[in-house]
Amino acid sequence: MAEIKILKNIMDENLSQAAKNRQWFRSRKILALNLIASPGAGKTTFLEQTIKGLFPKFKLAVIEGDITGDHDARRIEALGVPVVQINTEGGCHLDAHMIDSVLSSLDLTGLKYLFIENVGNLVCPAEFDLGEELKVVVLSTPEGHDKPAKYPLIFSEAQAVIINKTDLLQAVDFDIDKAEHDIRRLNPNVPIFRLSCKTGEGLDKWLQWLTSQGTENS
Amino acid sequence: MAEIKILKNIMDENLSQAAKNRQWFRSRKILALNLIASPGAGKTTFLEQTIKGLFPKFKLAVIEGDITGDHDARRIEALGVPVVQINTEGGCHLDAHMIDSVLSSLDLTGLKYLFIENVGNLVCPAEFDLGEELKVVVLSTPEGHDKPAKYPLIFSEAQAVIINKTDLLQAVDFDIDKAEHDIRRLNPNVPIFRLSCKTGEGLDKWLQWLTSQGTENS
Repeated sequence: MAEIKILKNIMDENLSQAAKNRQWFRSRKILALNLIASPGAGKTTFLEQTIKGLFPKFKLAVIEGDITGDHDARRIEALGVPVVQINTEGGCHLDAHMIDSVLSSLDLTGLKYLFIENVGNLVCPAEFDLGEELKVVVLSTPEGHDKPAKYPLIFSEAQAVIINKTDLLQAVDFDIDKAEHDIRRLNPNVPIFRLSCKTGEGLDKWLQWLTSQGTENS
Repeated sequence: MAEIKILKNIMDENLSQAAKNRQWFRSRKILALNLIASPGAGKTTFLEQTIKGLFPKFKLAVIEGDITGDHDARRIEALGVPVVQINTEGGCHLDAHMIDSVLSSLDLTGLKYLFIENVGNLVCPAEFDLGEELKVVVLSTPEGHDKPAKYPLIFSEAQAVIINKTDLLQAVDFDIDKAEHDIRRLNPNVPIFRLSCKTGEGLDKWLQWLTSQGTENS
């Protein structure tokens, strides 16, 4: 089956480049985060709020992954943070080679955090390691509490899970305990943060946890 | 580039099978719909409401596409409608061969509508024709009005666009006119239905439009 062989090559090559990226980040003590979510879960707003909590105390940079356009990159740029846009031109995920190809266009001197916002997709990005230290999945309450059970790979691989848009809990049918139960079944010790980027509720705990994280070399 | 050649083969083979499926549906005057949306946009609830508006007056069947599990299929089964579940086991979209492989397990005698609920993903399913007559994309208001501009392929290919969860318009920042403007820029004549599956508002217009549609052989 030629298709499978080629697919395996692509995955192997990605893993090999991801390992190089990871080594590169760690040697510079840069904590790289890969943000993964469905379209519309609030990844960019979550990133904006996270940046506001860290910058300018810490030096940050952002890689924005989108199929087309630079709408999200302009939102990040408005905060004064260096950002580079990757357009996948139809591609459903970022890969490790794309990350490698843009690192030289960012000033990474003294950088503490590199945030990578993946293409909005709860499926494919889970399969492509970028070399990040932390894979963070954002689930929003309007999506429904059944999503961890229906999209298990990303929830089982995440180093942190954000349950976003808790301000909408009264308006939507989302059983937050059921969602957390299903996440824990896949990933028993993963930290789960319930928060609202609109009201700011819960952001402090997330920021406290994030600033306590380091790379293996920190 | 071996990868590209193989990928082209996969796409060509899918198109060829999709053409066979389309011919098969048309020869039986079955209207096949391919429902595409992000995880959590409300595809299954929208399908339930659509079924309630059509069944038992019309004979229906459903193919449920999910990465894993049969949660959605059980919801459809509870309505008394024949349903078959496809689990992609990690795959990010349905393809035409998967549809062909399950047709024999459904009683299609006298069938008027076949609803195919794709895997929750706004990117990859847009690239795989299943042989459907109508591609219907469901966008929900909590996802944000920027999604048509950010995920243009599916909106440019759709034969109908549903703007779902209008009951949440007061609670979320969704500019419905901006969303419609961006959809029309990609797909000038596509019918757009604003509706809420929770309150039922707007469902009548969608059902009226749907029942006016036929296959080329109808």
